[in-house]
Amino acid sequence: MPNPTACLLVIGNEILSGRTQDINIKFLATRLGEIGIPLREVRVIPDIAATIIATVNEVRAAFDHVFTTGGIGPTHDDITSECISAAFGVPWEIHPEAFALMEARYAKGEFNAARRRMATMPRGATLIKNAISAAPGFSIGNVHVMAGVPRIMQAMFDALAPTLAGGKPVISRAVYAMGLMEGTIAAGLEAIQNRYPELDVGSYPFARDAGHGVAIVSKGTDVTEAEAATADVTALMAGLGLAPIQGEPV
Amino acid sequence: MPNPTACLLVIGNEILSGRTQDINIKFLATRLGEIGIPLREVRVIPDIAATIIATVNEVRAAFDHVFTTGGIGPTHDDITSECISAAFGVPWEIHPEAFALMEARYAKGEFNAARRRMATMPRGATLIKNAISAAPGFSIGNVHVMAGVPRIMQAMFDALAPTLAGGKPVISRAVYAMGLMEGTIAAGLEAIQNRYPELDVGSYPFARDAGHGVAIVSKGTDVTEAEAATADVTALMAGLGLAPIQGEPV
Repeated sequence: MPNPTACLLVIGNEILSGRTQDINIKFLATRLGEIGIPLREVRVIPDIAATIIATVNEVRAAFDHVFTTGGIGPTHDDITSECISAAFGVPWEIHPEAFALMEARYAKGEFNAARRRMATMPRGATLIKNAISAAPGFSIGNVHVMAGVPRIMQAMFDALAPTLAGGKPVISRAVYAMGLMEGTIAAGLEAIQNRYPELDVGSYPFARDAGHGVAIVSKGTDVTEAEAATADVTALMAGLGLAPIQGEPV
Repeated sequence: MPNPTACLLVIGNEILSGRTQDINIKFLATRLGEIGIPLREVRVIPDIAATIIATVNEVRAAFDHVFTTGGIGPTHDDITSECISAAFGVPWEIHPEAFALMEARYAKGEFNAARRRMATMPRGATLIKNAISAAPGFSIGNVHVMAGVPRIMQAMFDALAPTLAGGKPVISRAVYAMGLMEGTIAAGLEAIQNRYPELDVGSYPFARDAGHGVAIVSKGTDVTEAEAATADVTALMAGLGLAPIQGEPV
């Protein structure tokens, strides 16, 4: 059975304006690969309701899981939760469990209207609790709604991941050679990719203070195949008179 | 006249697998804002021809400019160029100027078949030359095809940017307060956003070694409005007994 697939929606003007360097994509890509729900697409979209609603409905139909980051705070630009309700066509209402959790975390008089918005969710949502933020994320259907602040998002994903039915972990094996140019190895590499059609054999040039080179990464769900392909790449590099080094360049 | 809009396609399995931390989104978002072609959407998609072709055709119809990064090297996983040809329905053929440029850069016998692929482009493409890489990027219609390696992409964008008809630069003004919580300022902030509907007033919590707080960023094309909104936010913060600091937290 093929692995389930994932799409990530990064919701927030701050990524599209260049104010903020996103680091959630890499974290989720890595962790989703490890639990066998590989990330197949990412979209970064602005805090515009019509865009969020249309995008959520498009991708929840196309992928097995949709993860969102951003837009669930208490301010006027946090509109993800109400847009998810609209996308699913369900009421956006106080979630009693979320309300109780949050009420217990705030001092008397501080659980104001803005903060109560964070306890307002699509009807039928299941909470994604976390120890860092008072406000939980939530799942509805195959859509998992998380915070944009990386350490909160990571705590939410840690809580969510064990509840997801994953597939075979995606693993990778790498080998690199200093001084190698992609154009030199391209033909031999294509032959290796063709020999292992189930693998994704990628070629990644790099430049470091120590010099430049190319890393070849074989990725898939079959360790034996990935190791066999990497052995073939190693032999290809050695045949060019280079000294292949196992692993990724540091 | 409203500013022209941009969409970025990040093409490459290495971002979706978590192997590589993307830094091209932030660079292009910032630079595109500066030349008044704000980035409205980003999609990260895999090296799969059908996906690339369909996505290019969808977004080139929806945005004024489309920028792509990745997939124009010499190896089998570099398929962006031929997919752009397919999307535009034009032949993929040797570009004589690109061929001549590259032939001059390689030693005799080194301009092999894999490297000649990098001189193969959609008919009608205009080159995006750069001093770092032998292989140029190219533009066709409103689609601008650049390398994925950041320093090469940046050199290509530097060459391309002066040829684009931009709009009003997007500028921003920021103010922050240590110790502030978003839930405290949310109601006042929404009123300010409503007072300046042309601006995008964003609220960004942060945590530093020095403490936590919230930065409020007012962004738009009108400096006077952005400064007026920031003055209002400053007064709002001061009214809460905080000490507002102009600019972004460092």
